[in-house]
Amino acid sequence: MSEEKKGRLVGIGTGPGDPELMTLKAVRVLAEADVVAHFAKRGNASHARRTAERYFRPDAIELPLLYPVTTEIEKDHADYREAIEGFYTEAARAVAAHLEAGRTVAALSEGDPLFYGSYMHLHVRLADRYLTEVVPGVTAMSGCWSSAGVPIVQGDDILTVLPGTLGEAELSRRLADTEAAVIMKIGRNLPKIRRALTAANRLDRAFYVERGTMEGAWAVKLADKADDLAPYFAVVLVPGWENRP
Amino acid sequence: MSEEKKGRLVGIGTGPGDPELMTLKAVRVLAEADVVAHFAKRGNASHARRTAERYFRPDAIELPLLYPVTTEIEKDHADYREAIEGFYTEAARAVAAHLEAGRTVAALSEGDPLFYGSYMHLHVRLADRYLTEVVPGVTAMSGCWSSAGVPIVQGDDILTVLPGTLGEAELSRRLADTEAAVIMKIGRNLPKIRRALTAANRLDRAFYVERGTMEGAWAVKLADKADDLAPYFAVVLVPGWENRP
Repeated sequence: MSEEKKGRLVGIGTGPGDPELMTLKAVRVLAEADVVAHFAKRGNASHARRTAERYFRPDAIELPLLYPVTTEIEKDHADYREAIEGFYTEAARAVAAHLEAGRTVAALSEGDPLFYGSYMHLHVRLADRYLTEVVPGVTAMSGCWSSAGVPIVQGDDILTVLPGTLGEAELSRRLADTEAAVIMKIGRNLPKIRRALTAANRLDRAFYVERGTMEGAWAVKLADKADDLAPYFAVVLVPGWENRP
Repeated sequence: MSEEKKGRLVGIGTGPGDPELMTLKAVRVLAEADVVAHFAKRGNASHARRTAERYFRPDAIELPLLYPVTTEIEKDHADYREAIEGFYTEAARAVAAHLEAGRTVAALSEGDPLFYGSYMHLHVRLADRYLTEVVPGVTAMSGCWSSAGVPIVQGDDILTVLPGTLGEAELSRRLADTEAAVIMKIGRNLPKIRRALTAANRLDRAFYVERGTMEGAWAVKLADKADDLAPYFAVVLVPGWENRP
């Protein structure tokens, strides 16, 4: 089949959770998409799908891509890597079958597709053979600092985005060496993050934000949060702009 | 006048430049806005206004907020600080007059309002007295890595956002100490950025992106860019995800 008759793959960022925070372009592309692919943990609903579902064509073919493993095996373990690589290869093959049939495939990612999004695993496997396009989205972190009303960076501020999985000393070193920070992957890492912020002398500036722009969103100064219970997808914000005029 | 009769201030992110990359919510709020405020350098058109203009109400009152100084005075100089503070105070007063009259004021920011956006100068001056809301937008950097098709971060990658105005040694140190980086404020800083990337052994991974999602957008490996001509709003991307499966 000639290149021209093949389909098109579009990575779509569905934004931070509020369906109204999707872009006009994302909605327009969904109205054109024959197939909608979405990643999820086996047994869980896709967050991105829930956000975007109202914009699917009624006749759209859904292609759920279900992770075979997530937290059951350690990430550094060879078995994890093998399982996850096999999964991405299969996912790319399933998408490619629709592209070969000339269909437009929209692949959803929460937030922004190329910013920690699953879509990029399809992109790197298919972009050399098929027409691809990426529709950027509002990131979860933008949703969080906007719903909390916390200006995060201004002027020449440096921003560092850190996973809460880093070791305590490493977190602390990096928090002391940046004007602003966003810490993701919170969950059971929260007590460690608190200690690292304290060591970096930044705890009093930190905010804890849960559920971003979704229903039940809330934000609090981390120093005022009495417990260490936190979902994995909460974020901690350390705003810069200390010399605010 | 009672609190209830006062107007509402909404900071709106207009995204990276393509009007179709505005959110549904931004467009809906503009359809409700009595007043649209936008910042620009005196003598220049507002980029955010150009992106969002088609969504203004035909009867919307426009409130241009024109910076009195930008690059004419050194930023660290007391005169600059005094001029800019006076300007923000006046801008907030002009917006407040509309809020006191019960109007809904939409204040535009390119990209995302609380991420290096001018809107935050209004927010910190008015949020304690008036109803405020922030509608996040797609950042310019998301627009750049999406149009270039460059996956920027994955998994536990650390991302550092750096101004190109930093000194060469400092840039180099930070580029060597992060998985991924975005360098903004390029312009005449490009030769220095190139040297810092070389010293950090990251030049071969760097991309240069101009005009993000706008007309005339283009991206190239920085090592393949023959000259050092660059607009101030170009960006340099150093993708992480080095252990890509």
